[in-house]
Amino acid sequence: MKALVYHGPGQKSWEEKPKPVILEPTDAIVKISLTTICGTDLHIMKGDLPAVINGRIIGHEGVGIIEEAGSSVANFKKGDHVLISCITSCGTCEYCKKTMYSHCEKGGWILGNLIDGTQAEYVRIPYADNSLYHVPANADEEAIVMLSDILPTGFECGVLNGKVKPGDTIAIVGAGPIGIAALLTAQFYSPSEIIMIDVDDYRLSIAKSFGANRVINSANEDAVAKIMSITNGKGVDAAIEAVGVPATFELCEAIVDAGGHIANIGVHGKSVTLHLENLWSRNITITTRLVDTVSTPMLFKTVRSGKLDPKKLITHRFKLEQIVEAYATFGNAAKEKALKVILSNL
Amino acid sequence: MKALVYHGPGQKSWEEKPKPVILEPTDAIVKISLTTICGTDLHIMKGDLPAVINGRIIGHEGVGIIEEAGSSVANFKKGDHVLISCITSCGTCEYCKKTMYSHCEKGGWILGNLIDGTQAEYVRIPYADNSLYHVPANADEEAIVMLSDILPTGFECGVLNGKVKPGDTIAIVGAGPIGIAALLTAQFYSPSEIIMIDVDDYRLSIAKSFGANRVINSANEDAVAKIMSITNGKGVDAAIEAVGVPATFELCEAIVDAGGHIANIGVHGKSVTLHLENLWSRNITITTRLVDTVSTPMLFKTVRSGKLDPKKLITHRFKLEQIVEAYATFGNAAKEKALKVILSNL
Amino acid sequence: MKALVYHGPGQKSWEEKPKPVILEPTDAIVKISLTTICGTDLHIMKGDLPAVINGRIIGHEGVGIIEEAGSSVANFKKGDHVLISCITSCGTCEYCKKTMYSHCEKGGWILGNLIDGTQAEYVRIPYADNSLYHVPANADEEAIVMLSDILPTGFECGVLNGKVKPGDTIAIVGAGPIGIAALLTAQFYSPSEIIMIDVDDYRLSIAKSFGANRVINSANEDAVAKIMSITNGKGVDAAIEAVGVPATFELCEAIVDAGGHIANIGVHGKSVTLHLENLWSRNITITTRLVDTVSTPMLFKTVRSGKLDPKKLITHRFKLEQIVEAYATFGNAAKEKALKVILSNL
Amino acid sequence: MKALVYHGPGQKSWEEKPKPVILEPTDAIVKISLTTICGTDLHIMKGDLPAVINGRIIGHEGVGIIEEAGSSVANFKKGDHVLISCITSCGTCEYCKKTMYSHCEKGGWILGNLIDGTQAEYVRIPYADNSLYHVPANADEEAIVMLSDILPTGFECGVLNGKVKPGDTIAIVGAGPIGIAALLTAQFYSPSEIIMIDVDDYRLSIAKSFGANRVINSANEDAVAKIMSITNGKGVDAAIEAVGVPATFELCEAIVDAGGHIANIGVHGKSVTLHLENLWSRNITITTRLVDTVSTPMLFKTVRSGKLDPKKLITHRFKLEQIVEAYATFGNAAKEKALKVILSNL
Repeated sequence: MKALVYHGPGQKSWEEKPKPVILEPTDAIVKISLTTICGTDLHIMKGDLPAVINGRIIGHEGVGIIEEAGSSVANFKKGDHVLISCITSCGTCEYCKKTMYSHCEKGGWILGNLIDGTQAEYVRIPYADNSLYHVPANADEEAIVMLSDILPTGFECGVLNGKVKPGDTIAIVGAGPIGIAALLTAQFYSPSEIIMIDVDDYRLSIAKSFGANRVINSANEDAVAKIMSITNGKGVDAAIEAVGVPATFELCEAIVDAGGHIANIGVHGKSVTLHLENLWSRNITITTRLVDTVSTPMLFKTVRSGKLDPKKLITHRFKLEQIVEAYATFGNAAKEKALKVILSNL
Repeated sequence: MKALVYHGPGQKSWEEKPKPVILEPTDAIVKISLTTICGTDLHIMKGDLPAVINGRIIGHEGVGIIEEAGSSVANFKKGDHVLISCITSCGTCEYCKKTMYSHCEKGGWILGNLIDGTQAEYVRIPYADNSLYHVPANADEEAIVMLSDILPTGFECGVLNGKVKPGDTIAIVGAGPIGIAALLTAQFYSPSEIIMIDVDDYRLSIAKSFGANRVINSANEDAVAKIMSITNGKGVDAAIEAVGVPATFELCEAIVDAGGHIANIGVHGKSVTLHLENLWSRNITITTRLVDTVSTPMLFKTVRSGKLDPKKLITHRFKLEQIVEAYATFGNAAKEKALKVILSNL
Repeated sequence: MKALVYHGPGQKSWEEKPKPVILEPTDAIVKISLTTICGTDLHIMKGDLPAVINGRIIGHEGVGIIEEAGSSVANFKKGDHVLISCITSCGTCEYCKKTMYSHCEKGGWILGNLIDGTQAEYVRIPYADNSLYHVPANADEEAIVMLSDILPTGFECGVLNGKVKPGDTIAIVGAGPIGIAALLTAQFYSPSEIIMIDVDDYRLSIAKSFGANRVINSANEDAVAKIMSITNGKGVDAAIEAVGVPATFELCEAIVDAGGHIANIGVHGKSVTLHLENLWSRNITITTRLVDTVSTPMLFKTVRSGKLDPKKLITHRFKLEQIVEAYATFGNAAKEKALKVILSNL
Repeated sequence: MKALVYHGPGQKSWEEKPKPVILEPTDAIVKISLTTICGTDLHIMKGDLPAVINGRIIGHEGVGIIEEAGSSVANFKKGDHVLISCITSCGTCEYCKKTMYSHCEKGGWILGNLIDGTQAEYVRIPYADNSLYHVPANADEEAIVMLSDILPTGFECGVLNGKVKPGDTIAIVGAGPIGIAALLTAQFYSPSEIIMIDVDDYRLSIAKSFGANRVINSANEDAVAKIMSITNGKGVDAAIEAVGVPATFELCEAIVDAGGHIANIGVHGKSVTLHLENLWSRNITITTRLVDTVSTPMLFKTVRSGKLDPKKLITHRFKLEQIVEAYATFGNAAKEKALKVILSNL
């Protein structure tokens, strides 16, 4: 089969690889229909994740058809239409029993990281019963593939951890795909005001059309001053960090109201300065999280009912064999005005 | 009347001051029976809290007798025996309505800070109906005075925010009075293992006698390595910071398990380094809090039922007029083997 | 002044009464601008609430202008535009400290019940600082008066207690004003499916236009069978009872899924049969509640932001002096196609 | 092998049955070391559970040794020392994903009910990876077997659902084994007062020695009046029903304070009268639950740490082959002063 293979920092190719086979009775082999590229994949390609070795097939999102199910897979059979969760969970370890699947002792985020991933014609999914979901009949595949990672990540790490509630004023720092995913799912809870902060006017205009009440281009204006002015000097109930650099995290520290929440989604490569000299008495909560995908069943329901339209996130479409070109587009997202790119193997 | 007055960094005296009078109909004047000294008072005396001005009477803890109640005070009358909360709350502002009394728009921590405090023969208490509590008949005054600040602080900022639950393994960093208050109140929730960390063997021995299952002197051994060895390399469910310096906060970052809680109690004068490059994917929660004293009614019940014996914290007793001497003892707590000192005006 | 006075079962009149005066320093006198009639007022008029005595001025909802504020009222002054909460709270008793204002030891629901109420030109409001809210400039008074009772009641007793969450399937039994209030506020949480059940097709058509996804006329079809068919035999996540008779409560028992919630809003005059022989093993939660009005500040925010449009509930408008006629209309709500009637004293 | 077999109401025998074999790759066969008899088993023997068919091996509690593990069982192997959970869970269905294992679509409470159970020399356990727990080295088997059912049931249905918290006053109605299990585990949360109600003085004396602060023999005194006197007319924060008849449930309705919880544990065969005419405005919560055994990992920790000593519940010991005699003793529990009986196959 063909697959996108990482060959060290800056090196990748669309090349022939052996088709995966069942290794454990709990495995399933999935023929990929659609996949996509995550911001994390760009980090991998830069060499930022040293655990990813030369020769690894990248990708942890996808929709497809079961090609073969291991002998103890109970919930799926050949021909089933499935969503692949970015998180693999054994369902029985100490962390899985706490529904913290991200830290599954045998799984977690392993696809396209510690084992071969979904940017390929076929992929092996361990613990298929816990790591795949049935795609409902008549569902839109392009919408569903957004449930592999980006929507549960924006929702769980940003919205749930930010404890967004009706009437709240919240800020989302970063209007890239993950910030937009937080924006879409924050609206489940009817906050009164969603303020989106970014340095790219195009992304801010997208955010506005997707439900942000206000946008701030922090390259052009003082975001802290602006938010304090909007909130009568109090700050926001929740500040959602969706970038992953010190400056944006520290911006969140500066704009959160007493009693508020800083919900980190960003993947950070460096430490940040936590201003406890100001914050120790401010009754704030800071959370970090690798998505657990506990919300995936709920997200299916909101897609089916039309409360959520994840297809909005898709800006570009390619054939799977054009994936190198797709990486170029997604890697230059601001210029290309890209949010999510779809790769089709249909 | 006589009072302990702050006269700038390093300067204080026990001197004559005018007896306080009712300024608002919601005020009460309390004749102090017992008061105590808080670690925060030592910070004030060093000049660390610039909002405290020359001439201020210090102190925010105490038990006493109502000398006079303002015309609209409904729940208290002359002669009532009362506990003074360290937090003053108006009961009607936006933050009070959320029971975040620490951030009351008209109160919060003002006693011995922005208005005159309790280390005096008399004190004026604003919003008496919301800021005082009846002392039950036959209660031990020395136990009750520990409910002004230290016990709700250890409990709310450390134990509640740390989400301590049955079976948990928790670490408390700092075995001073506030760490001990967290230790005592953590036991309300039956954690399986409480590990106490300090650099003073005497304090650790006290902690052990008050319920710590293990103690680590971090001056003598590698606390991180020791905790990882105790917890099979996982870390603790909750790490409670009860010191207030960068090193102890960063120790908490290093010992918390995935999914765990860092509950800050310490008063920090400097920023700390938050290792988001490690923690972003660890599903942890960090909290800060100025005590809201929402737990005071509950703490009264646990004292009355014998579930909590706060008198254990008291190591030294003085007459109120000996307060300068008491400061010397408490300011040299490690050498004097002091936890809480009681000052009596009886 | 003029007021609507209860004179025993079936007897009421619009008559001259003394204008109320300040009795306690915490009181305020409010000149009524708008008021409305509650379903509970109809119960009173029938004699169902024996605590309501002959001579009582009825009514517990309203918007108006402060005519006079008692000497210790801090947050309101003559001329302020205010919303009157149906719940009076002292803010300092044991229940108020738990924010269960409905059970305030000195207040609770007393207006138009144990003390004179709002269906009058003026009303005395005890504990004004805790029982009134500022009406924002430019707010629509007709929308705001819906926050006195019906919206917080539908929201707190129905939606919050029903733990409505994104993706849920919920049923609301009763499409009268209170059921509609639950319907409007349930949408804060983006349930996937809201099923409205009533016996009146007009009310069901209103419900549909206000956001119900499906309606069931239980006079014409088997509601249990229909719901089981909709939910693949499982039942609903939350069943909200908004009528107050045994049959509708037992309907809720029959349609709730394992793990689900029955949230009672209805005022019941009789006991009901609880089928524990079926429910003991079904992991369900049943809640009852007199509204605490803890959500009033949040509801103001959702009205201001346009997330909630309570004015939708208003079907009829009268002058205050026409209140006897308004009672006739509201008392015949189904025939008159009435939800809420507005009485104006402007 | 030998097993205790149900042969219709009132009929049982200790007889030869085929040794169970692996039917699915997720099964394990366990050789029983210890088992016990549950109150539910007595109901089965009376014919109260018609789903239990003639020929069924009874029993859903036990500790033993893995005799054989199916091909896809990952966490257990031949020779492992295991606790059998009374609840079988597939780990992947909709209810398991919500950790409501009691309602697992393929499991739930099936052992000794819909499939053969543990009162036998060997038992087949479906979904072994999710339904068994490793017994720690050096653990006391007799203590551990109490974790199969009675302790998680008392804890989850009674204590967790009753939201028992520090300082609470709680009542437990029924001092049989399950009420005692609630009593032991309620103490994890340090309530101030635990009132135990029963009609048997011996059981009440046991309750007192196990931590109840007060006992009421409701055959001799008016339990409602007594509790109102103890609680200053307010009632209890949590009323835990541990009997399963209408009278005891209605007692709970009468003694719960406004804002309180009624947590049902009892297995009810009849409906009860719910006094909504009193309770509609009392802000109470009523819960039912079949144990989910989500707390089993936590209970292991509390046993290991000595916070919980479940062995206290054991009053009688028999050899497994004496099980008919053990049933006679347990079936006459009051007279025999029996709580839990242990059956040993060692």
